[in-house]
Amino acid sequence: MQRVSVSKISDYTDQEVTINGWLYNIRSSGKLMFPEIRDGSGIIQGVVVKSAVSERVWEDFSKLTQESSIKVKGTVSKHPKKEGVFELQINDVEIIQIAEPYPITPKEHGVEFLMDRRHLWLRSPRQVSILRVRNEIIQTIRDYMYDNGFILFDTPIFTPNACEGTSTLFSTEYFDMGKAYLSQSGQLYAEAGAMALGKVYTLGPTFRAENSMTRRHLTEFWMMEPEMAFYDIDDDMDLIEDFLENVVQRVLKNCRKELELLGRNVSKLENVKKPFPRITYDEAIEILIKKDIPLIRKTSNGEEQIRPFPWGEDFGAPHEEAIVEDFDKPVMVHRWPAEAKSFYMKRDPSNPKIALGVDVLAPEGFGEIIGGSQREDNFAELEKRIIEHQLPLEEFQWFLDLRRYGSVPHSGFGLGIERMVNWICNLENIREAIPFARRPNRITP
Amino acid sequence: MQRVSVSKISDYTDQEVTINGWLYNIRSSGKLMFPEIRDGSGIIQGVVVKSAVSERVWEDFSKLTQESSIKVKGTVSKHPKKEGVFELQINDVEIIQIAEPYPITPKEHGVEFLMDRRHLWLRSPRQVSILRVRNEIIQTIRDYMYDNGFILFDTPIFTPNACEGTSTLFSTEYFDMGKAYLSQSGQLYAEAGAMALGKVYTLGPTFRAENSMTRRHLTEFWMMEPEMAFYDIDDDMDLIEDFLENVVQRVLKNCRKELELLGRNVSKLENVKKPFPRITYDEAIEILIKKDIPLIRKTSNGEEQIRPFPWGEDFGAPHEEAIVEDFDKPVMVHRWPAEAKSFYMKRDPSNPKIALGVDVLAPEGFGEIIGGSQREDNFAELEKRIIEHQLPLEEFQWFLDLRRYGSVPHSGFGLGIERMVNWICNLENIREAIPFARRPNRITP
Repeated sequence: MQRVSVSKISDYTDQEVTINGWLYNIRSSGKLMFPEIRDGSGIIQGVVVKSAVSERVWEDFSKLTQESSIKVKGTVSKHPKKEGVFELQINDVEIIQIAEPYPITPKEHGVEFLMDRRHLWLRSPRQVSILRVRNEIIQTIRDYMYDNGFILFDTPIFTPNACEGTSTLFSTEYFDMGKAYLSQSGQLYAEAGAMALGKVYTLGPTFRAENSMTRRHLTEFWMMEPEMAFYDIDDDMDLIEDFLENVVQRVLKNCRKELELLGRNVSKLENVKKPFPRITYDEAIEILIKKDIPLIRKTSNGEEQIRPFPWGEDFGAPHEEAIVEDFDKPVMVHRWPAEAKSFYMKRDPSNPKIALGVDVLAPEGFGEIIGGSQREDNFAELEKRIIEHQLPLEEFQWFLDLRRYGSVPHSGFGLGIERMVNWICNLENIREAIPFARRPNRITP
Repeated sequence: MQRVSVSKISDYTDQEVTINGWLYNIRSSGKLMFPEIRDGSGIIQGVVVKSAVSERVWEDFSKLTQESSIKVKGTVSKHPKKEGVFELQINDVEIIQIAEPYPITPKEHGVEFLMDRRHLWLRSPRQVSILRVRNEIIQTIRDYMYDNGFILFDTPIFTPNACEGTSTLFSTEYFDMGKAYLSQSGQLYAEAGAMALGKVYTLGPTFRAENSMTRRHLTEFWMMEPEMAFYDIDDDMDLIEDFLENVVQRVLKNCRKELELLGRNVSKLENVKKPFPRITYDEAIEILIKKDIPLIRKTSNGEEQIRPFPWGEDFGAPHEEAIVEDFDKPVMVHRWPAEAKSFYMKRDPSNPKIALGVDVLAPEGFGEIIGGSQREDNFAELEKRIIEHQLPLEEFQWFLDLRRYGSVPHSGFGLGIERMVNWICNLENIREAIPFARRPNRITP
């Protein structure tokens, strides 16, 4: 007897198979029962005909509660009406366990109720679909990097210093060596990797101790960060473009069923083909001024609206939305005010007030998914910035070494995995984009 | 002008190309110079003929120090004597930076000297080779899981409780929610994933706050943990066998050059084909008794040797070596004394003193690389064990839920990535198996 998974069922038409899974739902109609069985790879409808099975089998099905675990035997048949859909003509069942009354029912539940039962909520078709898309996104990223000569370079989580200040870092006691900080970014280490291996990437969890409960923030999130020797900012944008097109198009191809279940308008994703619009920060500001989108600043009396949007400020959600709304692709905003960006970004040789950074804004208002830059490769310039930013110079000596011993132009970027999942799956809230979301008010289950 | 990487150089025979990289070494012989250039993907020897290049080019090469960054132009030619080796007949060079005197020289350096300069040591051909093998191992693992229907299920790093007690856990303050512990294993969460998705795996960093400075321990190490619904211990061993054969054979095929550079005896790896020997713990004990290998117990007076090796004790390095030495493949030791194993392992139905666990010992004395088991799927049994192990029952209610709502037989295992790299690359010490090793006395650079 072949034990098969629902996802492969079309290979077994007219054959007798066993499926191991859980009862997702059951309808009955007189002498017929229609159990829906899920096995993690998909859901199949079974048909139980009272006259065709033993009394024991009929009674067993009558007893089954939602999420009861079972092994069913039957013959695979094509659905009489629906093209590409298969059914199982059941002739036997073995009950593994009758489930206790399942707490998640088809009625609407509050989000906190569901998050408290995340270990069970994960079984719903929607959550299963999101996680399958996440799986496809990450595998596609890794395949792209591998096929394009990048070497995986797992950077450390425990770090002695902070990439950009310690105020948003988690820390832990580290034996008798004082505190270790949990990494916010593998970039500085990846730069050492690029000097050794040419092109590297890191993909792992990163941590931010920010007490913000927005729809787009997690305290623990996964990030993919490639770093390339001999790449300038334009090479960086070329890579981003090719990379994003590849990932989106393959996910679209391999996860069409999941995206449909999620109600995703896939035509929006079909548009994601290079070239993408590249606009400077200055051009982005022009769009904001033309559309009369003000900067909103919190004051003691509430909020102040500043018009026209002042040069030098970073964008918030309304600005990102206004910038992307006239484009149907990701928008690359490059050449930023240096003051608004990190110490390690290279300045534009033609204007020292400008940093060679690039933010990629997803279409449809999903906001920033990628931040990248060309890195400062001049020893004296970098040392000056570290001092200006009041970072501990001694702890950055190893990073400065990369500019002492064969410094080269180099660039990289960081992609937030959950933000990517959010965009591709069209999610309202980032908490569904990872199996067990961690936010300031939640570390359970 | 084609910019190419050294690894692809054979595609450009007789063509003019540019290579961007670093000077690894240079020899001169009168009117000839032979610079070796590394670009992260490989090393190529250049040929500079004084009479064929400008005076400026000749002088530039005379100035170059080790690790200076350069762009060289030249024509790719086959090495006159060595099959499959290519040279670059150089006609131009652009110096990006003359490196300061490089601290790592061909002379022998102490390990701590090198670990203090890990960001530079990574550039050595040996370290580059190890990281390329690590990249291949991890990509192969991910491809295997993907191709076999496993869904990536990234489990959380921040956890409210401990899989196996809190004494070896790192912790961090988590807003106003008390402490969060850094995960030692994603298994418990992966079990929830298996109930939702059938077959899942997690591959990420895990943490152990053990103050041990052995050749095989890191405080931060990567682990791959698959978890499968409807798998018993025998299915688990079948998977381990197929998985290990696939990973080892593909790495062998794709990284032969790197393994040769590392001096690896590849014929030992060629043997890694299924079936692998499966012996019970009892049979392993028999081997130890036959070979007269005692248990060594530390006492106040030093050490005590206990003969014959007593039933119920776990194995140390000398025992693992004695068990594997008569086999040329990984050895699966299964059915362990329950007392020596974790609370979540299922007991053998035919003998409650035995847990359905399996340890996989790598050949050649590399020790345990995999630990796996069938999990306890009976609610009452699991609850009893949690209480017996004095774990906080309340915090395990979500884990018990997996046995309330459609419990099924399930199994999984954990593979230590750095131990795998150690074995495949034949390393003396695990610190070379990861870009920046973290041990009790080191969190820098």
